Amino acid sequence: MNKFFYPNSVAIVGVSDSATNLARIIFFNLIKLGFSGKIFGIGQMTAQKFKHILFPSISVLPQAVDLAVILTPAKTVPDILAECGQRNIQRVIIESGGFSEYDERGTGTSEILADIAGRYSIRFVGPNCIGTKNNRNGLYLTFAPVHTMGPVGSISLISQSGGMASYYYMHLQEQGLNMSKGVSIGNKLDLDECDFLEYFIADPETETIGLYLEGIERGRTLCQLAANTHKPVIVQKSNRKPGSSAIACSHTAALASDDTIVDAALKQAGIIRVRTSNEFLNVLKIFELPRMKGNRVAILSRSGGHAVITADACLEYGFELPPFPAHFFEQLDTIYQSRVIAQQNPLDLGEIFDFPLFARIIEQALQLPEVDGVIFNHLYGARLEIDSSRRFLIEVKKLQQRYHKPIAVVIATALSEFSAAAQVIQYPLFLEPDDAVYALAKSRDFYAFKKRVPQITTQDKGSLILRQSKGQPFEKLDDNPNLIEAMDFVTALGVPTAPYRGCFSEIEAKTAAENLGFPVALKIVSPMASHKSDVGGVILNINGTEALEDALLTLKQRFQKQFPGARYQGFLIQKMMQQGHEFFIGAKRDKQFGPIIMLGLGGIYVETIRDTVMKLAPIDRSEALTMQSELRCEGILKGIRSQPPLDSGTLAFVTTLVSQILIDYPRIYEIDLNPILVCEQGLHALDVRITVA
Amino acid sequence: MNKFFYPNSVAIVGVSDSATNLARIIFFNLIKLGFSGKIFGIGQMTAQKFKHILFPSISVLPQAVDLAVILTPAKTVPDILAECGQRNIQRVIIESGGFSEYDERGTGTSEILADIAGRYSIRFVGPNCIGTKNNRNGLYLTFAPVHTMGPVGSISLISQSGGMASYYYMHLQEQGLNMSKGVSIGNKLDLDECDFLEYFIADPETETIGLYLEGIERGRTLCQLAANTHKPVIVQKSNRKPGSSAIACSHTAALASDDTIVDAALKQAGIIRVRTSNEFLNVLKIFELPRMKGNRVAILSRSGGHAVITADACLEYGFELPPFPAHFFEQLDTIYQSRVIAQQNPLDLGEIFDFPLFARIIEQALQLPEVDGVIFNHLYGARLEIDSSRRFLIEVKKLQQRYHKPIAVVIATALSEFSAAAQVIQYPLFLEPDDAVYALAKSRDFYAFKKRVPQITTQDKGSLILRQSKGQPFEKLDDNPNLIEAMDFVTALGVPTAPYRGCFSEIEAKTAAENLGFPVALKIVSPMASHKSDVGGVILNINGTEALEDALLTLKQRFQKQFPGARYQGFLIQKMMQQGHEFFIGAKRDKQFGPIIMLGLGGIYVETIRDTVMKLAPIDRSEALTMQSELRCEGILKGIRSQPPLDSGTLAFVTTLVSQILIDYPRIYEIDLNPILVCEQGLHALDVRITVA
Repeated sequence: MNKFFYPNSVAIVGVSDSATNLARIIFFNLIKLGFSGKIFGIGQMTAQKFKHILFPSISVLPQAVDLAVILTPAKTVPDILAECGQRNIQRVIIESGGFSEYDERGTGTSEILADIAGRYSIRFVGPNCIGTKNNRNGLYLTFAPVHTMGPVGSISLISQSGGMASYYYMHLQEQGLNMSKGVSIGNKLDLDECDFLEYFIADPETETIGLYLEGIERGRTLCQLAANTHKPVIVQKSNRKPGSSAIACSHTAALASDDTIVDAALKQAGIIRVRTSNEFLNVLKIFELPRMKGNRVAILSRSGGHAVITADACLEYGFELPPFPAHFFEQLDTIYQSRVIAQQNPLDLGEIFDFPLFARIIEQALQLPEVDGVIFNHLYGARLEIDSSRRFLIEVKKLQQRYHKPIAVVIATALSEFSAAAQVIQYPLFLEPDDAVYALAKSRDFYAFKKRVPQITTQDKGSLILRQSKGQPFEKLDDNPNLIEAMDFVTALGVPTAPYRGCFSEIEAKTAAENLGFPVALKIVSPMASHKSDVGGVILNINGTEALEDALLTLKQRFQKQFPGARYQGFLIQKMMQQGHEFFIGAKRDKQFGPIIMLGLGGIYVETIRDTVMKLAPIDRSEALTMQSELRCEGILKGIRSQPPLDSGTLAFVTTLVSQILIDYPRIYEIDLNPILVCEQGLHALDVRITVA
Repeated sequence: MNKFFYPNSVAIVGVSDSATNLARIIFFNLIKLGFSGKIFGIGQMTAQKFKHILFPSISVLPQAVDLAVILTPAKTVPDILAECGQRNIQRVIIESGGFSEYDERGTGTSEILADIAGRYSIRFVGPNCIGTKNNRNGLYLTFAPVHTMGPVGSISLISQSGGMASYYYMHLQEQGLNMSKGVSIGNKLDLDECDFLEYFIADPETETIGLYLEGIERGRTLCQLAANTHKPVIVQKSNRKPGSSAIACSHTAALASDDTIVDAALKQAGIIRVRTSNEFLNVLKIFELPRMKGNRVAILSRSGGHAVITADACLEYGFELPPFPAHFFEQLDTIYQSRVIAQQNPLDLGEIFDFPLFARIIEQALQLPEVDGVIFNHLYGARLEIDSSRRFLIEVKKLQQRYHKPIAVVIATALSEFSAAAQVIQYPLFLEPDDAVYALAKSRDFYAFKKRVPQITTQDKGSLILRQSKGQPFEKLDDNPNLIEAMDFVTALGVPTAPYRGCFSEIEAKTAAENLGFPVALKIVSPMASHKSDVGGVILNINGTEALEDALLTLKQRFQKQFPGARYQGFLIQKMMQQGHEFFIGAKRDKQFGPIIMLGLGGIYVETIRDTVMKLAPIDRSEALTMQSELRCEGILKGIRSQPPLDSGTLAFVTTLVSQILIDYPRIYEIDLNPILVCEQGLHALDVRITVA
């Protein structure tokens, strides 16, 4: 992997002397940026203007290079890749577009590339990308003209889109956020974000890792990598909505995955997911500062209005604003002879026009044990304050080096001055209070998260709950089990179900109802009626034999009306439960992230209120309880007002049990228990649907 | 009001020759900015350096001025204000701080100011503000040095905080958003945001009005003004959380109002509420363009990544992305010989490096009848693209003048270039796709809202529903009515209640239960047990006389245990209802906004799921139905899956009825109907609580 960032020699394939030739721009970028390795141009030398030696092909290169960069038309790439293999060049970046993103033929070419790479043990980046960047050695393989590289820092980026990579490289440099390395992975036919994430996690030159992604194929791997590093991993995952997947598919051949799963999985892995570019930059900024190790913020502000806005944001993001102690104000009053409007946090310094004093007040706030981090709002605009502001910011930067608490500085000034100050000071600055508070919250949450044990289990390691259960092997089933089979299955595994009997005749049904005791529910059993209540296949509260006879007749008539000529498989008679609150538990298999477990408010609320929590499965008891605490309706489980608490322990047990089912039974694609009546003691699953792959 | 913006003469009170004298800065600002009226300085002339005439006091001025600006210590202000009155100066701006915001004495001074103003019919702005600004005549009364005023535009601002006013003035000017007028209202002891909003609504020079507020005292008036103008009103209301009110109170003596009420009321008035400064600026930008009159966006993008992000945002904000017709691509292909990766919306123009062509593609998109607005993402960075980008942006600006559909341009470039381009082009530019899409959505929603009839009714105009009802006058009550009285009251007004009897003895209770028919509920009646279920004051599902006797005993024992020695007033026997879904309706009187009506999911869900909608009361039937459609649980009312729809008509009727109660019964402070069981036919209120003022 190292050769993608530290090649001793690079070959650029596709150079010509045309002014718009893109490979040529890469060639000259490397020269301009002082790339430390050897550069070989491969292409047609047609004019004298080109002052460097060009080789007509890879095969005639005087030496094997560490890295080849290809930027020729798509159809020529397979042969060039094979040439690389023949010359034992095993690291290649294919920047050319025109593969899978817009035609049928392209897709074929993609497969050919994979074949060739496999044959010669080549690992490649792309196609359709702008390659790698390394601020330490002047390597920058983009085909847009570049003039400066920016100082060396410890942020590394992975971007699926070349455009977004360029955008972030530009903004990081302008805002004094210094990079270590960057890679644009494009269509990721071979190497993908997980490969580079693994590399950056191991890379001692990288501290913070940002990713822009449009598709995530190896979701489980991504989450496991992030969960097991102490480096912050920030992801902007676009292509969130089905409707926007069209362009992403053509752009970098991404496959849209269900965004709620992505959200839940990244959260569980401690990955910081951002929505906008502004959020992305703000989170990168905050990780340039010491971590926010607690929840208590001191707000210092030159503008009262900004103080109020900052306090709002702090409370919204769950921060506390501890009052400053008396000695803090005594020092301000006596030592500095300063005057503050009101002795409170947030502190309005609007009456103080002494810039050096601001830094000393910040220092005093940092020294308070009751403060975990400081936000300073610096409002300035008038030309005469620019120099004093810059001196103040340099003081802040020095202070930051002495204290292990973050100082988030908002400079409320013109954008042009913001840009100028950031580049001069090389300290992360925020555009407005909300940006700083949002970022501090991410730092705090990340710090708290990393104190816990990683939570992503591997799929094969699952517990033995199910294997030890009395459940019958389920492997023989080709079709989806019917209601009776599904109820039998989960009951056998240990899920408490409301007492029921599967019946294949009306006589059986009547006997079952008498044995169970009225009132009962009657449900039709048929693969066509798997959403039973939609087709009128359920009759509740049947109070006696006569009513049951009527109900059986009604159900049969309804079924025959809806599915003329079809046959139902039987009936389920179930005892009516009088108590309990409706929840649901579901599990499904996701292509990108593997098995997923869901818990939520059940019954009619599943689709209206949508109060659900999702995690990667399997989960243990403590995570099952965490899921409950993340529900909006947590209060119902805990017991609010005079309501008694419900049996959250048994609910957690069943959640872990269900989370294990998809691991132990690879044929099961989806399982839904809805509703589950959760009572003060115990619970009863009333209905189960199982879909096999 | 006009004299605050168009004074023929201004007196600045408090000028000295000290370099840090603030009044002096105002004086010189006016001269520097070429203010068109006469300027009189009032103050102590102690040195020869000051080249202008200073008058020792208002009383010796050679003429009465249109406007006096006072910036002297708080304690001197009352006398100066009185002097103004004596010279018949009736428009004053008090910029001095130190009144109500930080000491007891100050509050007294505030009252003295009000007295003097009343005596001389003076209207004043402030104290604690930076006064007014008018780009047309060079009037800018801030005490920070200012160098330029910016071009004349049609945006007017009202800001409670001087700091926020300065911040927005600076950013508007930098981003080419041109202002008409501005006012910083400070502590608003006399004139407040409503006064200036009314003025700007009538002002032909103002098209868009932005407000930064920390407190809203005349909420109903604010909403009525905004609801009845076709000018967009944008409000950033901070001081949202109780905890942050400390600083706001000291800063501009604001009173925090319940933020959810503010949210609901502003929404109902068609006011666009923003959270951050970035949102504020983005919304101001979009109203510089033609309104978004529909829901269909064409996305054009130089970067595929930005195209995906923009499409995500469009779908999130509820926009549609209509496919481009075949002739659109034919024109691109044949006339322009251009090449696009894929023929879709969003359209990735990444392969086109022809800037003039971009403008022509935008024009073609504008001409499509299926497109209501265009977003163009322009990613550029390399120095050599700056000039061509500027020319392109000028073309866009010209195009915009010819078409009545908005062209929202995102320039994904460095902040410094963003700033430079905005000032050169004088066209609203957005920093990232989400900003543009968010703003377009606000434009669309505002346009749709303004096609409806204004929805804010006055409090006194309420319908006659209640007056015509058989309800007893409720005025005699001093204390909160007990449960029986409250049930009787709403039943008399026409609210369907579950059959009940108020009983004052156990014998009565038994008779009542037999008459109503078992099963019944038993509830204790006592002012101490107004949250009955919290104190165990409710027993449900009583199935017979014997069970009722037990229940009565239990209830009495519980009550005596919790409130030893206290007396209960009686019992309520209520028929158990077997059907229906729990909702709640509530109304309360808000100090700032007047009567409020609420509808939500009821019972245990009120406080856990918090699915509620709020509006200013009274409302009519159509608004009551709108409230239902804004609930997350709307599906329950409409009937989802096999569930039948519930009686939303009766629910709407009861909602309007309750919304009227606070209008017709000024003594009632709060009323809660919870739960209300809504059935397929009709509904039953099960419980009522009424609080009198």
